[in-house]
Amino acid sequence: MRPGESRRAYDGKLFDIVVERWNEHEREIVEHPGSVAIVAVDAGDRVVLVRQLREPARATLLELPAGSLEPDESPLDCARRELAEETGFHGGRWREGLRMWTSPGFVRELMHVFFAEGVEEGRPDTEPDEEIELVRIPVGDLPGHLGELEDAKTLVGVLLLLRSRGL
Amino acid sequence: MRPGESRRAYDGKLFDIVVERWNEHEREIVEHPGSVAIVAVDAGDRVVLVRQLREPARATLLELPAGSLEPDESPLDCARRELAEETGFHGGRWREGLRMWTSPGFVRELMHVFFAEGVEEGRPDTEPDEEIELVRIPVGDLPGHLGELEDAKTLVGVLLLLRSRGL
Repeated sequence: MRPGESRRAYDGKLFDIVVERWNEHEREIVEHPGSVAIVAVDAGDRVVLVRQLREPARATLLELPAGSLEPDESPLDCARRELAEETGFHGGRWREGLRMWTSPGFVRELMHVFFAEGVEEGRPDTEPDEEIELVRIPVGDLPGHLGELEDAKTLVGVLLLLRSRGL
Repeated sequence: MRPGESRRAYDGKLFDIVVERWNEHEREIVEHPGSVAIVAVDAGDRVVLVRQLREPARATLLELPAGSLEPDESPLDCARRELAEETGFHGGRWREGLRMWTSPGFVRELMHVFFAEGVEEGRPDTEPDEEIELVRIPVGDLPGHLGELEDAKTLVGVLLLLRSRGL
């Protein structure tokens, strides 16, 4: 399905705004290049999370490692890169779990969720404006931490991990 | 936590763009009034979903009923209104399940997820530009439909419902 006319109403750094005509109505859409999130479990069966300031939430959130696709980057390459940059973890056995729209009422952001088992510790490579704390939680303890998860992708990833383990 | 300077870079119908200064860096943020999603189960133990065109996804998605907060509207009032408008279902016993950020890297949208049990059928009151198909799925059959869910809020709500039932 495609719109009729489309015009760019705002040119941003990470996203744009497009206004598209769909039959009788106009839709204002935030256009994003797409993103990844990673549910990574280390050799000690701990899930790898990050805690960082999220300015849109005006709070520090405990989240799955995640990030945006670079031009011409495959989702898997992006997921491996983001996990390594934010946490240092690398290697392991990977599979793509699902793709989902983060907020399909007004945001064109398709997020690819990956699952990685047996990832290995390394040195993070965070950007100068990123302050990221690494948090590892044993998979078996995750049910007691669900109330600390405050964003949609992290809830989806953790709930699917628990479901796959029968926890 | 609060930003330093802030300026409005785009004035939209449903959302704005603000550029905020946080210490040494600027952040471009999509500002939304907040939203609700509803996990409603009818007297026949069927969950109430909607299928509709989502222009940002350029596809028809099967989702939880959801919508945006009106000015001065409480999340619960909004959730009851959206469920009734989109599906006709009303009444029942309600509780707020959780609040979550839909895409906290660049969107300031806090979504309130409600759970309603024993909702009663009625006549929907959709807006002229909304074409919404009502889909009811028995809760016990939901595990077989997880692969049809393509957005984050619907996955979170359905996974939490299944978890609460031990399914």
